[in-house]
Amino acid sequence: MPIISLSSFKGGVSKTTSAIHVASLFCGNGQTLVIDSDPNRSASTWARPGGLPFQVCGEKEAAKLMRSQKFEFIIFDTPARPNDLEVEDLAKGCDLLIVPTPPDILGMDAMALIAKSLPANTNWKVLLSMIPPPPQKDGLEAMEVLKNQGYPVFKQGIRLYKAYKDAVAAGVPVHKVRGGKVAWQDWTNLKNELIQALQE
Amino acid sequence: MPIISLSSFKGGVSKTTSAIHVASLFCGNGQTLVIDSDPNRSASTWARPGGLPFQVCGEKEAAKLMRSQKFEFIIFDTPARPNDLEVEDLAKGCDLLIVPTPPDILGMDAMALIAKSLPANTNWKVLLSMIPPPPQKDGLEAMEVLKNQGYPVFKQGIRLYKAYKDAVAAGVPVHKVRGGKVAWQDWTNLKNELIQALQE
Repeated sequence: MPIISLSSFKGGVSKTTSAIHVASLFCGNGQTLVIDSDPNRSASTWARPGGLPFQVCGEKEAAKLMRSQKFEFIIFDTPARPNDLEVEDLAKGCDLLIVPTPPDILGMDAMALIAKSLPANTNWKVLLSMIPPPPQKDGLEAMEVLKNQGYPVFKQGIRLYKAYKDAVAAGVPVHKVRGGKVAWQDWTNLKNELIQALQE
Repeated sequence: MPIISLSSFKGGVSKTTSAIHVASLFCGNGQTLVIDSDPNRSASTWARPGGLPFQVCGEKEAAKLMRSQKFEFIIFDTPARPNDLEVEDLAKGCDLLIVPTPPDILGMDAMALIAKSLPANTNWKVLLSMIPPPPQKDGLEAMEVLKNQGYPVFKQGIRLYKAYKDAVAAGVPVHKVRGGKVAWQDWTNLKNELIQALQE
């Protein structure tokens, strides 16, 4: 039962979008649960219309759900602005910690901050998110910067598409909305890297 | 595997003391875990010296612990000032919700507020805590008020003793410190009521 956590010091970096789509990737392989521990309840909002192919629950309900069902995959969507103690806990509480960041200064700085507060043996990786479409080169440039600075980073980044907004509104993963197939491709491309990172 | 939660709108009402001692009561009957989801981390502080006969973990670590160990009893120590959504979650996430309150106006008012925001089918009970010693009658009077107002309340209340402070400092349950046996008696007297409440 792998446990994957999504975390970041900054809000609005695609934490919930990543949690929903990582869960969508794995839910075909086994019972999957997203634990929404963000007070904003974005994942729960996404789940409300009932079209997600996995369960989403609040943090206080998780123990009871885990008592009655066996989950193969658990994805934690965590609150922004965790303090050091919380960062340590969530790092210890998962098998892989994903820190999504858009390719911009505020996002990258917040990522560098959380990187500093992670315990030394944390299995973690940066996920470049919200990459603007070509001809903008923000994604490629940020990837270079991250690699040069020695951060562990997924080679596959996640591009920005309007389809994500439609997916939230409809309460489904992005591949279920019109024009969402190309956005979903980023996640399917990421899957092998995720599986590999879980084995590290 | 019963799940018991301690909650209250107000801080300083004996939530953590209750979590630690309810866990102490049950840990002889099976593997017991206290999940400390209060940002104050009082339960974790109590556990730090290593003298508690059960495990205490942060909320973000709980899923991983539950994956590797089978727990017979889970006790949630929750943050003060939950919002309505959080109250609903924690009510749904447990088999018994205990709301400790000292026999004073601020405590009783906060208890009445949380009572109002609980979902209708919640299995919950008030635990009178921090009852001052005789000849003060605060405990008896508060018990009358609670019963007259129709609140579900444990007949056994928990009296205030200096031994609790010594127990926190030593990182042990109260019966392990000098003079703590009489304080512990309140908990052992409560046990049957707890078991009964879990079956409701």
